[in-house]
Amino acid sequence: MGTEVTVLGLGAMGSALAGAFVGAGHRTAVWNRTPGPAEALADRGAVRTASAAEAVAASPLVVVCVSDHDAVEEVLGLPGVDLTGRTLVNLTSGSPPAARKTAAWAEGRRVKYLDGAVMATPSGIGDPAFMQLYAGSRADFEDSRRVLAALGDPVYLGADPALPSVYDTALLGLLWSALTGWLHGVALLGADGPGGGVPAAVYTEVAGRWLDTVGRFMSAHAPQVDAGRYAGGEFPLELHRRTVEILVHAGELRGISSGMPELIRDLIGRAVAAGHGGDSFARLVEFMRPGPAGAAAP
Amino acid sequence: MGTEVTVLGLGAMGSALAGAFVGAGHRTAVWNRTPGPAEALADRGAVRTASAAEAVAASPLVVVCVSDHDAVEEVLGLPGVDLTGRTLVNLTSGSPPAARKTAAWAEGRRVKYLDGAVMATPSGIGDPAFMQLYAGSRADFEDSRRVLAALGDPVYLGADPALPSVYDTALLGLLWSALTGWLHGVALLGADGPGGGVPAAVYTEVAGRWLDTVGRFMSAHAPQVDAGRYAGGEFPLELHRRTVEILVHAGELRGISSGMPELIRDLIGRAVAAGHGGDSFARLVEFMRPGPAGAAAP
Ligand SMILES: NC(=O)c1ccc[n+]([C@@H]2O[C@H](COP(=O)([O-])OP(=O)(O)OC[C@H]3O[C@@H](n4cnc5c(N)ncnc54)[C@H](OP(=O)(O)O)[C@@H]3O)[C@@H](O)[C@H]2O)c1
Ligand SMILES: NC(=O)c1ccc[n+]([C@@H]2O[C@H](COP(=O)([O-])OP(=O)(O)OC[C@H]3O[C@@H](n4cnc5c(N)ncnc54)[C@H](OP(=O)(O)O)[C@@H]3O)[C@@H](O)[C@H]2O)c1
Repeated sequence: MGTEVTVLGLGAMGSALAGAFVGAGHRTAVWNRTPGPAEALADRGAVRTASAAEAVAASPLVVVCVSDHDAVEEVLGLPGVDLTGRTLVNLTSGSPPAARKTAAWAEGRRVKYLDGAVMATPSGIGDPAFMQLYAGSRADFEDSRRVLAALGDPVYLGADPALPSVYDTALLGLLWSALTGWLHGVALLGADGPGGGVPAAVYTEVAGRWLDTVGRFMSAHAPQVDAGRYAGGEFPLELHRRTVEILVHAGELRGISSGMPELIRDLIGRAVAAGHGGDSFARLVEFMRPGPAGAAAP
Repeated sequence: MGTEVTVLGLGAMGSALAGAFVGAGHRTAVWNRTPGPAEALADRGAVRTASAAEAVAASPLVVVCVSDHDAVEEVLGLPGVDLTGRTLVNLTSGSPPAARKTAAWAEGRRVKYLDGAVMATPSGIGDPAFMQLYAGSRADFEDSRRVLAALGDPVYLGADPALPSVYDTALLGLLWSALTGWLHGVALLGADGPGGGVPAAVYTEVAGRWLDTVGRFMSAHAPQVDAGRYAGGEFPLELHRRTVEILVHAGELRGISSGMPELIRDLIGRAVAAGHGGDSFARLVEFMRPGPAGAAAP
């Protein structure tokens, strides 16, 4: 059939992936368990196929994006599906064991396998501002990179197929943490001032620029974690401890409560109490890990 | 004496401010309670003064940066200090009431007053990547902007002199929240994988790029808060609720504990339980504020 890429699974995400491939000018074959979504994609220029087997046979690069790992196994086990020699890119969310299981399945069949994670909602697909994360053989990634770039910003993480799953979880944790801290600030600013408070959109213009400073802290602290040495420099934990009290107090004054300032105060307080007041904020990682450095939080 | 700007208080921050003014080519007068720091600045080209009164008389723009509000009052009350007609920029950290008190003091004396907050450590002063926040009369800000730009990126917040203090607190809350979520991810990635885990610096390269996505979420959610309507769209709270369980579970599996995933799960869970599963994450702000929408967290 001579298409460049096949998409198996045309739910909200699979349809967005297929649409982005088509939009970037790649000949794209599509298949879905139930026929409706493939018709819509065909209207946009994709090539409908009659079966998963036919869809897989059509392209050297096959992207699967279905509900979960069980659905992936079901699709890959459909009659006539033969991926030998092809590259399978699995963009279905899953756990590290699921990723390793699919990778082992692929290895046993001489299927080139990339596990992936889509760090966007469907409407963000095709926008290079959003990342897709990939793991597997770097050569396989480089061979597919040009086509995968139609989806967004392709980022290679390493050989272990479990990496996208763990990165996905960690990055969502960062997103939620930041959004929670941001909303707490929105509530503080919104409550304040004689004029009835600062609109969220006004505060957020400044908060968005502040993320650049947040990124600089992360970049400066990361090598400290890797070295296990946490020089506090100009902003030691003792200073964090004093200023976090202001955050706690500001919430109390206004009746605003997210639990976030108290959680941070307690983490900082434990590290300072353990004698690390001169260290940087990065020292707190030792109090999150299992083991003697900081025992698990209560 | 004909200097452009005066700096009162030459501690770690005041010295950095004065150094940045000098470095940008502004004629700068300096004064400190104890003489040592002024000598160091004079070596770099600043003009030493014999008293606070002389320092204030030297320039139309006077920046004060001392330990706290009490110290500001003490400096401004020193013999012969007359700020009439001058612009006083207070970069000392303080509370909203302290800012309003100093502003009222200035108004009573026909002193133009800008309150400010320095969103950098001393080594970041002079780098336009870091913000200084200002409030007061916009005209006074615009008149001083060119000189203040020597310190970094000057951001005008509004008329209320309390704004820099509250922004400072809110932005630090965002910083701490994001750093805590980031460190949790560092611990997760560091514990994972057959090769002993991902170095913090490697994960942080991706996490830093992810902050762009975090900023897009903030920008998209802010108008929802202002409108009090929280359409969940592609990523409703019900979906957050399911995926946050993965974050909680990933920590449990590896014995990693910061309290952060549980706090977020509980916040999301409360909103979903109250019937907001179809809403966006921004709905959580209603559960942080006092009052019926969500009663304070336990
Ligand atoms: N939506 C997002 O914002 C988002 C973001 C990041 C990652 N993801 C991930 O992307 C994947 C797909 O999500 P989605 O939003 O596209 O979900 P969705 O809209 O619910 O679509 C699910 C897709 O999986 C197919 N499917 C389910 N079970 C199957 C089976 N046993 N055999 C064959 N096909 C089966 C469905 O086919 P039918 O049409 O025949 O039912 C449908 O195409 C998920 O792993 C999700 O976690 C989604
Ligand atoms: N350092 C930072 O990273 C940072 C970041 C953001 C904001 N800030 C804020 O900047 C301000 C200054 O901080 P800093 O780091 O420069 O502190 P610092 O190094 O401790 O210096 C304190 C300064 O205040 C002066 N001072 C204290 N009490 C005084 C009094 N009663 N009369 C006259 N002068 C007095 C000191 O004079 P002597 O030398 O005579 O003692 C010294 O110049 C604080 O409000 C701080 O919160 C600092």
